[in-house]
Amino acid sequence: MSESEYDVAFDLSDSDAHVHKRWDRDRDPVLEVSSRDVVRVDCRDADDGQLHEGMTVEDLREHSIVGHALTGPIAVEGCEPGDVLQVDVLDVEHGDWGYTHFRPAEEGVGLLPEEFDDPWAYIWDLGEDNGHFVDGIEVPLDPFPGVLGVAPDAAGPHSTSPPRRVGGNMDVKHLTEGATLFLPVEVENALFSVGDGHAAQGDGEVCIAGIEAPINVTVRLTARRDLSIDRPQFRTDGPFEPAGLDGGAAIATSGVGGDLYEAARSAVRQLIDRLERERGLDRREAYVLCSVAADLKINELVNPNTVVSAYLAERLFPEE
Amino acid sequence: MSESEYDVAFDLSDSDAHVHKRWDRDRDPVLEVSSRDVVRVDCRDADDGQLHEGMTVEDLREHSIVGHALTGPIAVEGCEPGDVLQVDVLDVEHGDWGYTHFRPAEEGVGLLPEEFDDPWAYIWDLGEDNGHFVDGIEVPLDPFPGVLGVAPDAAGPHSTSPPRRVGGNMDVKHLTEGATLFLPVEVENALFSVGDGHAAQGDGEVCIAGIEAPINVTVRLTARRDLSIDRPQFRTDGPFEPAGLDGGAAIATSGVGGDLYEAARSAVRQLIDRLERERGLDRREAYVLCSVAADLKINELVNPNTVVSAYLAERLFPEE
Repeated sequence: MSESEYDVAFDLSDSDAHVHKRWDRDRDPVLEVSSRDVVRVDCRDADDGQLHEGMTVEDLREHSIVGHALTGPIAVEGCEPGDVLQVDVLDVEHGDWGYTHFRPAEEGVGLLPEEFDDPWAYIWDLGEDNGHFVDGIEVPLDPFPGVLGVAPDAAGPHSTSPPRRVGGNMDVKHLTEGATLFLPVEVENALFSVGDGHAAQGDGEVCIAGIEAPINVTVRLTARRDLSIDRPQFRTDGPFEPAGLDGGAAIATSGVGGDLYEAARSAVRQLIDRLERERGLDRREAYVLCSVAADLKINELVNPNTVVSAYLAERLFPEE
Repeated sequence: MSESEYDVAFDLSDSDAHVHKRWDRDRDPVLEVSSRDVVRVDCRDADDGQLHEGMTVEDLREHSIVGHALTGPIAVEGCEPGDVLQVDVLDVEHGDWGYTHFRPAEEGVGLLPEEFDDPWAYIWDLGEDNGHFVDGIEVPLDPFPGVLGVAPDAAGPHSTSPPRRVGGNMDVKHLTEGATLFLPVEVENALFSVGDGHAAQGDGEVCIAGIEAPINVTVRLTARRDLSIDRPQFRTDGPFEPAGLDGGAAIATSGVGGDLYEAARSAVRQLIDRLERERGLDRREAYVLCSVAADLKINELVNPNTVVSAYLAERLFPEE
């Protein structure tokens, strides 16, 4: 959407006073807006600038994650418990820098923690349309905020990690420019916060990170007293194709059997194996590439077993 | 792919002698082919013609499912255990008829069995490009076989219901014309069978059926002694968009928290609620429409909670 189609009522910077790392219904709003106001919000990267080029494995081990650095909360006048907050995502801009990391095995996070003893981080140089990866691989960018949410009603503080019925860390890669998110509201004036910018991410975000990046997000916030929902809902025109498909095909590996989680693990493990064998990536690079560009799909879940497949566009790889 | 680009070496009819309903490594092949031969295979509908217009709830309760009616097995000369069978899906044709059913609650199958006491079946009239549903809703068709597999090595017979490491009931909607499937081979000459035609299906096939339909499938079968895989893999150019997107947007409902299965159940329950409330479908119709046209996506699975969303194209619905 071009900027001329809306007027920005407020700019909210990511100054310390505007950033928080826990959900808390009792946190004072940093901005009060009317329903239908448009706000341009600066968001730090999720990890609040802690990761940088040249970090060692020991640095990464010692680095601790408190919570996503979110900007807000923004009070939307007249948006009451039981109402719905409509969030129109009008624009999302990334900068020239990002990172993708995974945590040490003993923390047990990510889809395949036991396969990677040491933590790792890849620092991305971002162009306008692509992130530059190893071996000439260009990852198309389609930035979105991983966290969009309103304050939960239970007395806080609460971790920003789990997604909640009021949104939060949903990591829905389809909530990019042009999408509209609907959130059930639990507290007076909604108390909306946003952050966790991803310049790119695959469905599933398997290593636990997308291309984490500071972003600038422009949203229209509308109190919908005419709607009632129990969980987040949204409207989007995609992107639905695996990143970089570009009229070509995707390769896919299938996890079969067990529960959906085990099937997903099997699918990603096989895709990493293939990337290592056929494309010469090391396993850390392959895991990161899956996290930022491979899509996990539930093919079936109602027969006695399950099938989950991981899809990656062939044209991500430069022609040989 | 146009027919001129390949020569069909064999036509395999769906006569009784060519149809089986269990996997069994000791079943005699009904056809022997050389590697790279192209075979055109007639496939009955999965339920072997038992469902028809005018069935009552009692008829549906009493109707029993033995196993998918599969055509085969086809022996591929020289395709040995440890090899890979490459299946190029060259063409898939559906007829003018199909059905989508779900089973009674007490059988506990489908994603939401407890919500539907009685079984139900919708009989589809299929045009060339669309299946005609209620209220003027047209569901785009993109036919594929739900079952593509080779015989497992364990002494049989085995149910056709669960997908296996050697393929079988995978229900991957991307295995349509132009796709290539790779299956690990466990028995001498692979023993390939195919069936369970779906004229359309959403990712997840939530009510337990797509648009079940007889199909005619043309495949090239190639023994790949140069490959080694542990589970099915494939290559596809889609379709990746929710059926009927047509340049528009999809609505999506999110299940948040619990395991992936519970999140998927929540997502579909909410989508059914919306279709009932906003589009006037009854719940049975909404469940069937989700099964044939809504895609389940894993948005995230590595944070403490999970998000699975169900996506349905807005343009499925005629303008009011």
